[in-house]
Amino acid sequence: MKYLVTFSYDGSAFVGFQRQKKLKTVQGEIETALTKINNNEKVELVASGRTDRGVHALNQKAHFKLNKRIPIYNLKRALNSCLNGEIYIIDISFCDDDFHARYSVKSKKYKYIINVGNYNPIERSYVYQYNKPLDVDLMKKALKLIEGTHDFRSFCTDEKERENCIRTIFETDIVRDSNKIIISIKGNGFLRHMVRNIVGVLVEIGAKKISGEEIISILNDKTRIKAKKSVPGCGLYLVEVNYE
Amino acid sequence: MKYLVTFSYDGSAFVGFQRQKKLKTVQGEIETALTKINNNEKVELVASGRTDRGVHALNQKAHFKLNKRIPIYNLKRALNSCLNGEIYIIDISFCDDDFHARYSVKSKKYKYIINVGNYNPIERSYVYQYNKPLDVDLMKKALKLIEGTHDFRSFCTDEKERENCIRTIFETDIVRDSNKIIISIKGNGFLRHMVRNIVGVLVEIGAKKISGEEIISILNDKTRIKAKKSVPGCGLYLVEVNYE
Repeated sequence: MKYLVTFSYDGSAFVGFQRQKKLKTVQGEIETALTKINNNEKVELVASGRTDRGVHALNQKAHFKLNKRIPIYNLKRALNSCLNGEIYIIDISFCDDDFHARYSVKSKKYKYIINVGNYNPIERSYVYQYNKPLDVDLMKKALKLIEGTHDFRSFCTDEKERENCIRTIFETDIVRDSNKIIISIKGNGFLRHMVRNIVGVLVEIGAKKISGEEIISILNDKTRIKAKKSVPGCGLYLVEVNYE
Repeated sequence: MKYLVTFSYDGSAFVGFQRQKKLKTVQGEIETALTKINNNEKVELVASGRTDRGVHALNQKAHFKLNKRIPIYNLKRALNSCLNGEIYIIDISFCDDDFHARYSVKSKKYKYIINVGNYNPIERSYVYQYNKPLDVDLMKKALKLIEGTHDFRSFCTDEKERENCIRTIFETDIVRDSNKIIISIKGNGFLRHMVRNIVGVLVEIGAKKISGEEIISILNDKTRIKAKKSVPGCGLYLVEVNYE
């Protein structure tokens, strides 16, 4: 029986998403819980994609297979009672055999939160603290310039990612909510560190260190060298994974 | 030289406020940092009051003495670099020898946050998760009933606190901000667990398990037995300590 699960997690409680021996990861914890429920027969969790260390998810999605058909309500309750609140199972549904949590993705949305107000200890793992003023309008205009289909090679940190770097950004937005600047980016897919590298460039633009148009030069440059202004993972949230 | 310090902390990172051998506490961490700065001569931190395990502070205050006069800016920077972001020194000033961080308190303000929306892992140490609807108007009216000067014995958990339990509540408010219910209480002083016990009763009122007027019967009862509906520390924040 194949299941689709929607879940949220606090990235600061794990060393990352992907299963690693003896280390606490999101995939590892869920697989351990699923395996227990599956009469100790190993279960593999196939997510829409990994998130890096410290990155949070409000609605991550994944598929997995179990030997038997378990009523959704019971399965959700059993999983949440195995996980200790750092990961939360929001929803589970049955899915077709040909559904694939990674390959079937149509779009994803991320948000990134920058705090430009006073430092607050309780937010230290959940925002990027920036202590100088940022011009949100400049950032917003620059971000609009990279909407559409482009080769995003310049914004990818992973040297191994040599294949197709063409992605489409459908929608972007930046809003200021009191002392928080919230950047949203929705696209058909994202390269490793792509959002954080884009936000890093936006911060330079907002701080008036570079002009808004430079985001285009960096994009056109198609080398990974220029966009080295990444921002920390703790400000990043996977908000949506869509299959339609 | 006597100093007054204002600081914030994430209560979830500590076993409590008060210094304890071999355990990580707010007082312990700050005293260790101060002692290092004071050429390893022991420094005692005298706070406006303790907070319980899991309780956060946005503006806690305390006094301490150092052998020498250190410029405020340098002292703040040195302390924040010793502490690792779980406690944050907001402000330091010199104070008179007769100032006492606990005895000189004129008022304090606490807030308590209840989340009635979906559970979110990243908020698990920062709100009280309540999964049923609450009637904020009923809660607000009931809370108003206990403004003023009363014997708050019924709302005190600590059996040892046998002295004067008369306190004055100056101001209360409850606002709903999206899925959060935020309760604020300002008074001249608070007994142990007093805010959490009051909120516990308010939750029963908001959930329509008891009537709003029952808060008065509980108050007049003057036994510690009735108000046993405490809520967890993670939703509680010390917001203000005032000396004027």
